[in-house]
Amino acid sequence: MTRYKLTIEYDGGPYVGWQRQANGLSVQQAIEEAVESLCQASAVVYGAGRTDAGVHAIGQVAHVDLIKDLPADKVRDALNFYLRLQPIVIARAELVDEEFHARFSATGRSYLYRILNRRAPAALERGHIWHVPHLLDAAAMHEAAQELIGHHDFTSFRSTECQAPSPMKTLDELRVSRAGEEIHVVAKARSFLHNQVRIMVGTLKLVGDGKWSAGDVAKALAAADRTKGGPTAPPDGLYLTEVRY
Amino acid sequence: MTRYKLTIEYDGGPYVGWQRQANGLSVQQAIEEAVESLCQASAVVYGAGRTDAGVHAIGQVAHVDLIKDLPADKVRDALNFYLRLQPIVIARAELVDEEFHARFSATGRSYLYRILNRRAPAALERGHIWHVPHLLDAAAMHEAAQELIGHHDFTSFRSTECQAPSPMKTLDELRVSRAGEEIHVVAKARSFLHNQVRIMVGTLKLVGDGKWSAGDVAKALAAADRTKGGPTAPPDGLYLTEVRY
Repeated sequence: MTRYKLTIEYDGGPYVGWQRQANGLSVQQAIEEAVESLCQASAVVYGAGRTDAGVHAIGQVAHVDLIKDLPADKVRDALNFYLRLQPIVIARAELVDEEFHARFSATGRSYLYRILNRRAPAALERGHIWHVPHLLDAAAMHEAAQELIGHHDFTSFRSTECQAPSPMKTLDELRVSRAGEEIHVVAKARSFLHNQVRIMVGTLKLVGDGKWSAGDVAKALAAADRTKGGPTAPPDGLYLTEVRY
Repeated sequence: MTRYKLTIEYDGGPYVGWQRQANGLSVQQAIEEAVESLCQASAVVYGAGRTDAGVHAIGQVAHVDLIKDLPADKVRDALNFYLRLQPIVIARAELVDEEFHARFSATGRSYLYRILNRRAPAALERGHIWHVPHLLDAAAMHEAAQELIGHHDFTSFRSTECQAPSPMKTLDELRVSRAGEEIHVVAKARSFLHNQVRIMVGTLKLVGDGKWSAGDVAKALAAADRTKGGPTAPPDGLYLTEVRY
């Protein structure tokens, strides 16, 4: 068996999410089917981040063991051939040793959340950005975001369906900046809870609206109660941008 | 009658082009239908640039005379409401006097052509970029592009179906630069011939391939013969970015 590390880009729109599910096509299943077409044998593709339905990736990482010993570039090109009708692309494939595990070896994950902050909706970026038509205060959002940095109980910022055994996480970075008509939120941590980035963005949006203060965000965090956090931002604007090892 | 200047964004993929045609839906027709829904009267929407099928815009400009005297922001919002199921957006609407003509008052047009220059195809940008899998020499493309700057007979760089009375045009700027995995070609002129930007890009790609020299581009220009120019690049990578007045 030969282990390959795959760096993957996808439009999450048509999928039920990264992970295989009974209710529809997942990104994982689509790639596993491409692997099966290549090797004539089934194989599990292990991903670093279990992105939700509609969430995109430009830097998802996965590993897979193939029964064929092929050059990494051949694996990349062959999988892209079998995936050609789907918005999933293997940007890079690399040979790795059997110690490498896409999920458990990862030391950090980065996400980008894009908000289109203008009156008119998106034309070319439809489904790839969250449209907020009224002006948001990005500077206030950034200031409030700093309340969430560090090691905390993020219960207020995780889905009630989150299956992680502990709500304790360390948030390393949460930057909000304006880029023309867009607002970008960059989040970095070793790992995130289910929906954590989307709930943090939905909460910071309340600050951008002028409805919440930085103190309200700190109070929501301290409450450790999902009903005290803000709403979950839509998946459209979220991108898994990098997994670090 | 009240005249409005509209700044328009669209994904050209689903349309036969800007201009009304018998063989399918055009961007112009889609916007004219939205105007008719708003005013209960038909109106012609005059565009500054007649983009081809599949060509996109982030800065197309058009004007339209409405029988209703509405605030410009209302016109923008109402048209966006009627266009909401299509990838066409009125980014801005402004009141202008009746001297203003989107096409004839324009003093300059800018286009951007995006090439994805890496082995793996596009995932999220499918249909929005031209995928060239082998490495192109962007510096050589930029150098060769300078041969086309100035006032010339661009017969070698216009569609044989081009209806412009003269092939003489003044090209003000043609810049080629690398931006990570992308190559960007920026073209600026008072106006362009039919397919001119796409044929210039298709020709410069031959230079990037190492098949043509800057001298070959100069020779193709001097020949004033479409069969001596390079191929027409696909519409996917082309964006009308700005119309100047």
